Amino acid sequence: MIIRDLVITPIAFRDPPLLNADGVHEPLALRTVVRLVVDGGLIGLGEGSGGRRMLGLLESVRTAVIGRSVFDTSAIEQAVSEALGGDAGPVSRRDRRTVFSPIEVACLDAQGHLMERPVVELLGGRVRDAVPYSAYLFYKWAAHPDPTTGKPGVADEWGEALDPDGIVKQAHLLIERYGFGSIKLKAGVFPPDQEIAAVRALAEAFPEHPLRIDPNGAWTHETAVRVARELGPALEYFEDPVLTIPGMSAVAAEIDLPLATNMCVVAFEHIPEAVRTDAVQIVLSDHHYWGGLRRTRELGAICETFGIGVSMHSNSHLGISLAAMTHVAAATPALAYACDTHYPWNRGDDVVRPGGLEIVDGSITVPHAPGLGVELDETALERQHQVFLDSGRAERDDTGYMRRFQPDYDPILPRF
Amino acid sequence: MIIRDLVITPIAFRDPPLLNADGVHEPLALRTVVRLVVDGGLIGLGEGSGGRRMLGLLESVRTAVIGRSVFDTSAIEQAVSEALGGDAGPVSRRDRRTVFSPIEVACLDAQGHLMERPVVELLGGRVRDAVPYSAYLFYKWAAHPDPTTGKPGVADEWGEALDPDGIVKQAHLLIERYGFGSIKLKAGVFPPDQEIAAVRALAEAFPEHPLRIDPNGAWTHETAVRVARELGPALEYFEDPVLTIPGMSAVAAEIDLPLATNMCVVAFEHIPEAVRTDAVQIVLSDHHYWGGLRRTRELGAICETFGIGVSMHSNSHLGISLAAMTHVAAATPALAYACDTHYPWNRGDDVVRPGGLEIVDGSITVPHAPGLGVELDETALERQHQVFLDSGRAERDDTGYMRRFQPDYDPILPRF
Repeated sequence: MIIRDLVITPIAFRDPPLLNADGVHEPLALRTVVRLVVDGGLIGLGEGSGGRRMLGLLESVRTAVIGRSVFDTSAIEQAVSEALGGDAGPVSRRDRRTVFSPIEVACLDAQGHLMERPVVELLGGRVRDAVPYSAYLFYKWAAHPDPTTGKPGVADEWGEALDPDGIVKQAHLLIERYGFGSIKLKAGVFPPDQEIAAVRALAEAFPEHPLRIDPNGAWTHETAVRVARELGPALEYFEDPVLTIPGMSAVAAEIDLPLATNMCVVAFEHIPEAVRTDAVQIVLSDHHYWGGLRRTRELGAICETFGIGVSMHSNSHLGISLAAMTHVAAATPALAYACDTHYPWNRGDDVVRPGGLEIVDGSITVPHAPGLGVELDETALERQHQVFLDSGRAERDDTGYMRRFQPDYDPILPRF
Repeated sequence: MIIRDLVITPIAFRDPPLLNADGVHEPLALRTVVRLVVDGGLIGLGEGSGGRRMLGLLESVRTAVIGRSVFDTSAIEQAVSEALGGDAGPVSRRDRRTVFSPIEVACLDAQGHLMERPVVELLGGRVRDAVPYSAYLFYKWAAHPDPTTGKPGVADEWGEALDPDGIVKQAHLLIERYGFGSIKLKAGVFPPDQEIAAVRALAEAFPEHPLRIDPNGAWTHETAVRVARELGPALEYFEDPVLTIPGMSAVAAEIDLPLATNMCVVAFEHIPEAVRTDAVQIVLSDHHYWGGLRRTRELGAICETFGIGVSMHSNSHLGISLAAMTHVAAATPALAYACDTHYPWNRGDDVVRPGGLEIVDGSITVPHAPGLGVELDETALERQHQVFLDSGRAERDDTGYMRRFQPDYDPILPRF
């Protein structure tokens, strides 16, 4: 079953003004949709990172993919890597895996349709029937400012969250709508004591919900250790308080909380040092940059072997990625934590038809339909592609966007 | 697609008197064939370890497997483990994986038939079109002694190999028939200088063939280091010269040759210590005890991550296992060495129809037929099952068999 075409479509979709250690999310998030066309016209879907650089890299591997069997994903992985110059070339192994990921997902979606099996069964089948996700809280402005005047706009459906009350209110909204059973707070925005207060307020409002905090490396060693000691057992795990593997290792040596990361261990090459220095106790997998769904299962096996826990990271994404995340999480025994997802923030502009996957009681039931179990809405895809074209946007730039409103904004980390 | 039955058939087949550090192979090797019957009567084939204990363990998990979907191999793995008592029970994780392995292989064979795809494509597809195997040389008697008198029998087709000349002659025979491009000598039988002489004779006779020697832990630290220094670059790798991970680590620290093992790193639980102490540079995978084909690919990913090479171990086996070994080797990028196989020694009593898989120019072309690509010969299976029943045999006992002819034989290792 030969791959006859690889249609690569850059898209942009609305994103609320979510604050983080880099700045603030822009009004549009970028993403790339891949349609892999096999003999007979059947299409496999993949979704990956956005922006013009990723688009260029994907375009540059097109001819290396076309003409191969859709069942030969390992050979396609090698061909993609070689088309990008391999180890001797200018593209890092992580970026080569990022390029391959949506192609692998599209291959597995197509395989599933051809064989009338859900993707999860191509990965060993379900070890869980539903995949739990976490409520992903952000400090946020009420609305994107007016682009010319910089003045506040009309509040979006989520409203403002700039203090503990706002964060608790946001958690209530998300949990009301989706039933999430655990909570993650994106931090590194305000001075640590304010963020500690927000976690305490969450712990009081949601005493049964495991809590996580993720300042994206915005803290010094001393701050990280202090926050860990102050919040202590209120946290399920403590995500990327500091940057680098040695930094995490030094924090880990002084605290009792498990440290999690999606910043310092983001490729197989990083694992040996992390293991040797006991730097992280939980790795946040992400099939988008670990090289696809099979590689994510392998990451799970590596972590299991070394006694490291596995959770899942998310970037802004739409429904194709949500489906892929759900299938691989259902198939990976080690992935025992609730996964992160930005989906509630971005789903309004989804390019898959509604009704495919829904978060109910905090979890998504793993689809039984063939492939990923989602159906492309071609009109929506065309619409979001046009949004991308009209935007003139090239790359994500949370810092540049923040500086439009706070010209002296300094993104250098650690900040606190 | 539900599993309706699991038919477990113990078999025995002729085995030449191959010498090793434990003693000598008995006239019959033991093995277990698994037939997994799914809806509609389609059968998936698996082959695993033999003997009455394994038979009992397999029988005890039958009901945990029947009724499940043939696509849910990860859930079946968990169910098998639980049926054997899990971590709290008396069966080691390695043994639980050994029980699961032929069941997983049979599931994948059935999946392949149902979806009309070869098993390799359920594992990510081919990264090599043909899998190279090595010529597996053994010191051996000319024939099994007469069981009552102990007197030499009529020489078998391979003849005697008790010195360098005999070993070189055996290598010529195997390479003539199968075209093997690399050579492994099972050692630990004679004093090391005799075995060094055999390797030197092989190096002279086959200057282009990578050579390996495997004394199965029969040597002391001093002997291992001396042999490594004497043979040096004549060897591709040096397999299990001593027992235990600390023992291998100590040898590794003193020599330049890569050390390989299928004795001290035989389960995922062993890998952290081996990595920490840099004990082995090559792991010999074996899907029969690493928990099946998907787990073997995961082992490959772990080894790749930690810069450890991967080769493949073999026990006495027949054609179902050869097919499974070939599919997983073709699908595992890290598995870059020629694989070991006992197949030439045992194929005369195979239970699959001829013509499925053939070793040509030292390699087996990866089948394109659905499933494993081999077809059961039910008459042959019944015949070898009857041989098992008639034999009254319970477990492999190379030492006990050796003692029938050399009552003072001492199997304690290290021997030299």
